[in-house]
Amino acid sequence: MATSWETSVTDSINTVYLLFSAYLVFVMQLGFAMLCAGSVRAKNAMNIMLTNVVDAVVGSISYYLFGFAFAFGIGSNSNPFIGTEFFALKDVPNDTYDYSYFLYQWAFAIAVAGITSGSIAERTQFSSYLVYSSLLTGFVYPVVVHWVWSSVGWLSPSCTSGLLFDSGAIDFAGSGVVHLVGGIAGLWGAFIEGPRVGRFDAFGHPVPMRGHNATLVVLGTFLLWFGWFGFNPGSFSKILVSYPDATSQGNWTGVGRTAVTTTLAGSTAGLVTLFGRRLILGHWDALDVCNGLLGGFVAITSGCAVVEPWAAIVCGFVAAWVLIGLNILALKLKYDDPLEAAQLHGGCGAWGLIFTGLFANEEFVVQAYDSGEIGAKRPYGLLLGGGWGLFGAQVIEVLVILLWVSMTMGPLFYVLHKLRLLRISIVDEVAGLDISSHGGYAYAGHPDDGNPRFYADYLRLQGGVRS
Amino acid sequence: MATSWETSVTDSINTVYLLFSAYLVFVMQLGFAMLCAGSVRAKNAMNIMLTNVVDAVVGSISYYLFGFAFAFGIGSNSNPFIGTEFFALKDVPNDTYDYSYFLYQWAFAIAVAGITSGSIAERTQFSSYLVYSSLLTGFVYPVVVHWVWSSVGWLSPSCTSGLLFDSGAIDFAGSGVVHLVGGIAGLWGAFIEGPRVGRFDAFGHPVPMRGHNATLVVLGTFLLWFGWFGFNPGSFSKILVSYPDATSQGNWTGVGRTAVTTTLAGSTAGLVTLFGRRLILGHWDALDVCNGLLGGFVAITSGCAVVEPWAAIVCGFVAAWVLIGLNILALKLKYDDPLEAAQLHGGCGAWGLIFTGLFANEEFVVQAYDSGEIGAKRPYGLLLGGGWGLFGAQVIEVLVILLWVSMTMGPLFYVLHKLRLLRISIVDEVAGLDISSHGGYAYAGHPDDGNPRFYADYLRLQGGVRS
Amino acid sequence: MATSWETSVTDSINTVYLLFSAYLVFVMQLGFAMLCAGSVRAKNAMNIMLTNVVDAVVGSISYYLFGFAFAFGIGSNSNPFIGTEFFALKDVPNDTYDYSYFLYQWAFAIAVAGITSGSIAERTQFSSYLVYSSLLTGFVYPVVVHWVWSSVGWLSPSCTSGLLFDSGAIDFAGSGVVHLVGGIAGLWGAFIEGPRVGRFDAFGHPVPMRGHNATLVVLGTFLLWFGWFGFNPGSFSKILVSYPDATSQGNWTGVGRTAVTTTLAGSTAGLVTLFGRRLILGHWDALDVCNGLLGGFVAITSGCAVVEPWAAIVCGFVAAWVLIGLNILALKLKYDDPLEAAQLHGGCGAWGLIFTGLFANEEFVVQAYDSGEIGAKRPYGLLLGGGWGLFGAQVIEVLVILLWVSMTMGPLFYVLHKLRLLRISIVDEVAGLDISSHGGYAYAGHPDDGNPRFYADYLRLQGGVRS
Repeated sequence: MATSWETSVTDSINTVYLLFSAYLVFVMQLGFAMLCAGSVRAKNAMNIMLTNVVDAVVGSISYYLFGFAFAFGIGSNSNPFIGTEFFALKDVPNDTYDYSYFLYQWAFAIAVAGITSGSIAERTQFSSYLVYSSLLTGFVYPVVVHWVWSSVGWLSPSCTSGLLFDSGAIDFAGSGVVHLVGGIAGLWGAFIEGPRVGRFDAFGHPVPMRGHNATLVVLGTFLLWFGWFGFNPGSFSKILVSYPDATSQGNWTGVGRTAVTTTLAGSTAGLVTLFGRRLILGHWDALDVCNGLLGGFVAITSGCAVVEPWAAIVCGFVAAWVLIGLNILALKLKYDDPLEAAQLHGGCGAWGLIFTGLFANEEFVVQAYDSGEIGAKRPYGLLLGGGWGLFGAQVIEVLVILLWVSMTMGPLFYVLHKLRLLRISIVDEVAGLDISSHGGYAYAGHPDDGNPRFYADYLRLQGGVRS
Repeated sequence: MATSWETSVTDSINTVYLLFSAYLVFVMQLGFAMLCAGSVRAKNAMNIMLTNVVDAVVGSISYYLFGFAFAFGIGSNSNPFIGTEFFALKDVPNDTYDYSYFLYQWAFAIAVAGITSGSIAERTQFSSYLVYSSLLTGFVYPVVVHWVWSSVGWLSPSCTSGLLFDSGAIDFAGSGVVHLVGGIAGLWGAFIEGPRVGRFDAFGHPVPMRGHNATLVVLGTFLLWFGWFGFNPGSFSKILVSYPDATSQGNWTGVGRTAVTTTLAGSTAGLVTLFGRRLILGHWDALDVCNGLLGGFVAITSGCAVVEPWAAIVCGFVAAWVLIGLNILALKLKYDDPLEAAQLHGGCGAWGLIFTGLFANEEFVVQAYDSGEIGAKRPYGLLLGGGWGLFGAQVIEVLVILLWVSMTMGPLFYVLHKLRLLRISIVDEVAGLDISSHGGYAYAGHPDDGNPRFYADYLRLQGGVRS
Repeated sequence: MATSWETSVTDSINTVYLLFSAYLVFVMQLGFAMLCAGSVRAKNAMNIMLTNVVDAVVGSISYYLFGFAFAFGIGSNSNPFIGTEFFALKDVPNDTYDYSYFLYQWAFAIAVAGITSGSIAERTQFSSYLVYSSLLTGFVYPVVVHWVWSSVGWLSPSCTSGLLFDSGAIDFAGSGVVHLVGGIAGLWGAFIEGPRVGRFDAFGHPVPMRGHNATLVVLGTFLLWFGWFGFNPGSFSKILVSYPDATSQGNWTGVGRTAVTTTLAGSTAGLVTLFGRRLILGHWDALDVCNGLLGGFVAITSGCAVVEPWAAIVCGFVAAWVLIGLNILALKLKYDDPLEAAQLHGGCGAWGLIFTGLFANEEFVVQAYDSGEIGAKRPYGLLLGGGWGLFGAQVIEVLVILLWVSMTMGPLFYVLHKLRLLRISIVDEVAGLDISSHGGYAYAGHPDDGNPRFYADYLRLQGGVRS
């Protein structure tokens, strides 16, 4: 069948838009790798980068085989809890999904495992990564996607079989679906493993463990910012709505506005963190600004498409204090997360969902979720007079993600822990993962590199047992 | 009101083109951060990166609140000197500007402050950055934008109320508006602060102060090149001209040609610098090629859309010698600019404006500035027989930018200097900004890191006075 | 002449698609620079980065002047062996080629020399780079492009004057044209120069020479992955086929599928290398995963547009073992290639061509090479029942590239060697290229930096003779 000219134009424009957005989201994997590498000590740099590369390659295979199917596999016997078709891309492309959509979703999926690997950095056996990374990317995350983003999900704001609280949860690009999921998984991993050796002294006071390279942290942060322009504005999936849907205006203004709200929320959070931490610490800390920026991005990710620019500034302002507050709390509780991933992606992700329930703009919500439907009416931001429906659905999303990830990833990390597969030995941890598991340091000229006495000591202590 | 299919297609294509161009321009901020970090000494790496991050976050807020309004706020009572509407994006989007246009202009605005921060690196108090960065991004730069790029600006080549010398100045992507502005601001800052401690010996001879990491310089240079593909070819704003303007061909050929002229000018300048510096120094210097490349890009930025590829090679050839010459002059005058920003962005930026006055092609000028107007006739390159109109306007642009930036940023830096807010103390400068202002070095394992004697000395010398 | 609305839309979409793809391919140059820098010893980091920058700037000029003409200069007297028009972009743009096409091809051309410079790293005189790089980018590579990718090339699958074996060779994005050419050139260079000093001990056993910075290797690998999304999916050149060719569906599905096959092949190869090397070495090696990934990408580059996703997994699986096997063989033969470029780009590139001959899908081949032709019939993958035509043409492509590059680059390297212009002196090699040829180390704080005794020794040994 020949395709009409109008359909061809629409498909071409949307494919260009979606594929290049996917490429930007993919850059976030590099951003994570650099951010993580810079934030750990030099002796573990190779390890953390390997986990980021492996998240990408393992995630690609498991998302291709299972993940996409669990997330979007909607067939004749579809159900609101899990998808059941399109394993290994069978029957794709079809009328609903083209390859570009798979690629875009794939780039999201591999990001989740990257978040979690930050929380458990510097003390985890490499084989554990292979296990949890496959499970998270191939099953735990896709199920949440199915709930919130598929057209039959029970939490979805466009669920065809009725909306939760007449609203559904609005998690446009995934403050909850991506960041809260990754953050909670990391929380359980880091909690079960316990803090790194030496992170808290004999009196329980925290001992700073600065990352080895601030340049990499800044590089990673800017790359993540760059990638977020694919993550948030790209989540419309289509910039031109299918012809002849002439009542719709298409999404170009929405896409642009989303890029603007993302930028403003991140910038505000970065600025507030800069001054907030200056008040607390007495100096200007570049790494805090970077984490503040990322916290703002995580928070706006849920509502980016449905709030006004001024609201994005509110979002970023609060996100900064959520992050600062949770970091203080984490130290009090002796919780050690080298990348602050649980605080940043978990805490700011949860705030982002709540924020959307408070500030979502009526007009934008209708545009994003009822395109073409004249006179559609649905709950919107509580503080803007939109009622409790949306706010309630947002709270539900926070709670069910907490529950679901805790029920799946918690036991997994616990079993790995009991089987002694989770944490490396103290000797290996002190020596560093790179020399104990990866055959050498990331940098030639590391002080211990090529030092025969060090190797002799290390091998003696290790007693021949390799992790 | 339903939008017509043709308008929807046009808006979709143009938004994709402009937003992805904006994302590329944003990458230049990362490029600057890496270039700057690599070009300073390790003890100041954290500081310079923080200023780059802060340029972005402060710039985002101040450009949102004021900058865009001063630049493009054209309402009923518009005037040729400064915009007066659209503060905090009020009444945006409208018929003229969508969010994507704001985002594209925002990415330009934050680049300006980044240029200036290079000139004053390694010796400036952090609070000064906050002051000058807000002012530059929020006021000084937007006013120049209004003059040259808005449709009512007195220097604009598409000014609706008459053209200067029947021509207006052609500064397509901003050799003058962006680079000359940033470079002149840096010149005043660096001049008022004076050179870094130890940059010139007791006899006035320059002492090399090599940056600490050439890899970062190369990384930054390539990222800037990548970003320039958004900066120059993206400056058409639209690739498809609004239907049913059937007499116009759209800008796709112009956009592609602009990418080609940009590439050729940069490459030529890089190559000429490579051989030129080899003649002068006796070795092949990678960092010189990088700066040469950037000089070529800066120079072609004004004329990129209106010159032939062969002319771009002329542009780059001269730019290389402008840069080499100004660097020699700077040493003679004991002017110390760690990034050569005044020489590179200021000098090559000024050359770029002049070059356009000499080599702009008649056909391309009409295409770019009189789209759809049959038989339009306007001045073009002096050497191609286009008369003195354009050349004159270009010279005027150089002069007024010199004057305006000197009148605004000069006094600002002078007042900061007099208030002792500009330069850090000698003790802090010798110790490095990272340890004195930012709580620690960028790199674990810095020779002085964790050296108790160094800290004791430093704190004693500092005498309790913190900048 | 006014262009029709439909043509304007088509040209705009295709230009956006092709230009942004070109920008991504350009990022690969940065990826190569970082990968190479990280893989060599610190004392040669400046040198290898300079060669990468110079590949770009020299390549730009020589491809503009000659290369594009030799590749695509098809005029009235066209011939299947070499192009003869469009030198210095004369008569471009024209009906066939716009500037965007030149830019896309330029980004490919500069990549070739980058591959080769990896093979001869750490021991080659800088002036040799200038020579071979101009020749490779300006002549040797473009001729192969003309054979395989131009519409009159004797190997081309869309040759207008008859197809080789009724098929022509399918090398969609250049496993052969780009990677095999670069790899074979590197093979000859590295073979003629011989291994680095100390690479093999007195008994012929290899001595590990680890690169100095694994972070840069990971950075480079991810950037190359990012760039490959321009390289492979971008090679369709057009995403929307010219109106009113209403029988065609355009290429959006093909473009998306190409991105997916690329991702899957690379990921599979990365994963297989991870486990394969773990079996052989006993530890998890991040750098091996990186090289495995790249090997998978190189291999799928030929068939990316014409194979199913499952076949891409087969492609990556075999590519990993080709790379592992050739690396073992190289050590046996005492062949020293610091970047494994000949093994990776040469070996996996050759496998990629063969793979396409085995697994090309009938429908996809027709879509890609007979667009719009109803009922077209042509050979496809041998293992899918497509006959020997395509497979034979693929074998021919491997053989003629081997022959052509060996006949041109082999003698060139040999002459440079005989004229003592190829390899640096042993003293310079031990001291490192950065200090001997480039005026200083890449990093401040290199152990020998500023060590007066080292300089004195070095200058004495060098005896005043500078390379």
